[in-house]
Amino acid sequence: MATIRQLVIDVLKPHEPTMLAVADEIADLDGVDGVNAVLLEMDEEVRNIKFTIEGTDIDFETVNATVEDTGARIHSVDRVACGEYIVEDSPTAQD
Amino acid sequence: MATIRQLVIDVLKPHEPTMLAVADEIADLDGVDGVNAVLLEMDEEVRNIKFTIEGTDIDFETVNATVEDTGARIHSVDRVACGEYIVEDSPTAQD
Amino acid sequence: MATIRQLVIDVLKPHEPTMLAVADEIADLDGVDGVNAVLLEMDEEVRNIKFTIEGTDIDFETVNATVEDTGARIHSVDRVACGEYIVEDSPTAQD
Amino acid sequence: MATIRQLVIDVLKPHEPTMLAVADEIADLDGVDGVNAVLLEMDEEVRNIKFTIEGTDIDFETVNATVEDTGARIHSVDRVACGEYIVEDSPTAQD
Amino acid sequence: MATIRQLVIDVLKPHEPTMLAVADEIADLDGVDGVNAVLLEMDEEVRNIKFTIEGTDIDFETVNATVEDTGARIHSVDRVACGEYIVEDSPTAQD
Amino acid sequence: MATIRQLVIDVLKPHEPTMLAVADEIADLDGVDGVNAVLLEMDEEVRNIKFTIEGTDIDFETVNATVEDTGARIHSVDRVACGEYIVEDSPTAQD
Amino acid sequence: MATIRQLVIDVLKPHEPTMLAVADEIADLDGVDGVNAVLLEMDEEVRNIKFTIEGTDIDFETVNATVEDTGARIHSVDRVACGEYIVEDSPTAQD
Repeated sequence: MATIRQLVIDVLKPHEPTMLAVADEIADLDGVDGVNAVLLEMDEEVRNIKFTIEGTDIDFETVNATVEDTGARIHSVDRVACGEYIVEDSPTAQD
Repeated sequence: MATIRQLVIDVLKPHEPTMLAVADEIADLDGVDGVNAVLLEMDEEVRNIKFTIEGTDIDFETVNATVEDTGARIHSVDRVACGEYIVEDSPTAQD
Repeated sequence: MATIRQLVIDVLKPHEPTMLAVADEIADLDGVDGVNAVLLEMDEEVRNIKFTIEGTDIDFETVNATVEDTGARIHSVDRVACGEYIVEDSPTAQD
Repeated sequence: MATIRQLVIDVLKPHEPTMLAVADEIADLDGVDGVNAVLLEMDEEVRNIKFTIEGTDIDFETVNATVEDTGARIHSVDRVACGEYIVEDSPTAQD
Repeated sequence: MATIRQLVIDVLKPHEPTMLAVADEIADLDGVDGVNAVLLEMDEEVRNIKFTIEGTDIDFETVNATVEDTGARIHSVDRVACGEYIVEDSPTAQD
Repeated sequence: MATIRQLVIDVLKPHEPTMLAVADEIADLDGVDGVNAVLLEMDEEVRNIKFTIEGTDIDFETVNATVEDTGARIHSVDRVACGEYIVEDSPTAQD
Repeated sequence: MATIRQLVIDVLKPHEPTMLAVADEIADLDGVDGVNAVLLEMDEEVRNIKFTIEGTDIDFETVNATVEDTGARIHSVDRVACGEYIVEDSPTAQD
């Protein structure tokens, strides 16, 4: 299988644990080099957060289990790059 | 024939297999260095995904067969670069 | 735990102490290399300020305590990067 | 005569041959280093495609003949760069 | 205290002295490497000017006194960077 | 006199000769290194083209004569850079 | 006094002399390395031109006198950078 080098997930989580705590847990996983978390929306019950994960060998199932263990869930996988390097998406006239 | 170095395809696929699984299969093909997949739209039945594929010698027929084997299909080829390096498209007053 | 390398917080503060004084106090903390403060809004009572903090090992609790000691408070944590380097967030079609 | 180093053409073509096949034929010409093709519009009868061609000595007549041999035609020449290097167009207040 | 490396101030000043003269006085201060001044608005009585000041050790009180000595005044401090290098502000979904 | 290093002209020309031919003639002039031509508008009678010309010593009168010899004319000189290097225009609040 | 390294002026001039001639005269001044001139507006009587001037020691009074000798006049000084290097203006939330 090809190596997953970048993964962008849209996550819904309750107030606790914090965005920081979830980012920290993901960043500690094997094959993950770093994590960026951006708060997209917050209302009384739910935070909507976008995580961008980079690494040399990201395991999606472990990321998913880690997110769910914190009480959050992945709403969608919005972007993935796999292979020998991170390929950027190239613009099209349809964008 | 000239070498295909970049290919951007617009793909429609059912829920399963995942975007990740399709990207992974394409990234494993000979002549492909890496794949970027971006989720464009999802509704109950269908995911619309944009794949950007880079490599030193991409074979379109093999990419197409790989996509179709997963149950998805290429809706359109939106961008291709072939030759000695990846030529970017240059802006025009008509853009 | 993974290292926090970048932290963006949205802060509400009274007129005094100044934005400069708060930025200065945060920049002096262990594990912080530098701070950027941008004035977002000011009205008669309150300043709304965005702080971008970078460092090799940012401690969120200490940052929070420092902000609160000045009479200000963190309204939201809008962005965090942790791991071996600062991962940027990658654009998605949902942005 | 000065060397043509970049050429952007707007091409109308029927469904067949594919955009890939036309790009490939142009990329194989003498003096051409690479080709980028972007699908601008497709309807039932016609594809509208923008080709960006780079090379050390592009011969317009050969490009034109190659396009016409595939059953397509050049609708307009939108951009050309010639000389010792590729000059970019510089913005003006009228743009 | 942490070093102030960049300071952006919004200044209101009468017609005289000129923007050039004020910028020059600030640029001559100890700890200041350079100044950029941009005219934001001018009406009959007042000029509104944005000064971006960079240096290795900017002293805010001296800058303020210098501005006031010219007959102008600082309307707001819009941005400050302090620490070991100039940290840029990082975009958030709230921007 | 200072050296002209960049010149942007707005040109109106009849259908013939082609944009390519005019660009080629300008690129062949002494002191010109390269030319970029962008088609701005075309109607039945006239093409409106923007030429960006770069060189180490561009002679405006020769460029003008060359354009007029082809049957075209310079509608306006929209941008010029002269001196020891190409100075870019810097943004202002009035832009 | 601190060195002026960049100056952006908004100039109104009659048809003659040309923008090119004025740019050339400014570029020839001591302490000026190069000039960029952009045509902002032209009507029957007047051209409105933005000059960006860079150098190691620009003398404003000499620039002003040179502009006025050509029959043009400086409408406003829109931007100036002085000091040891060209400081760029930094964005604020008020921009």
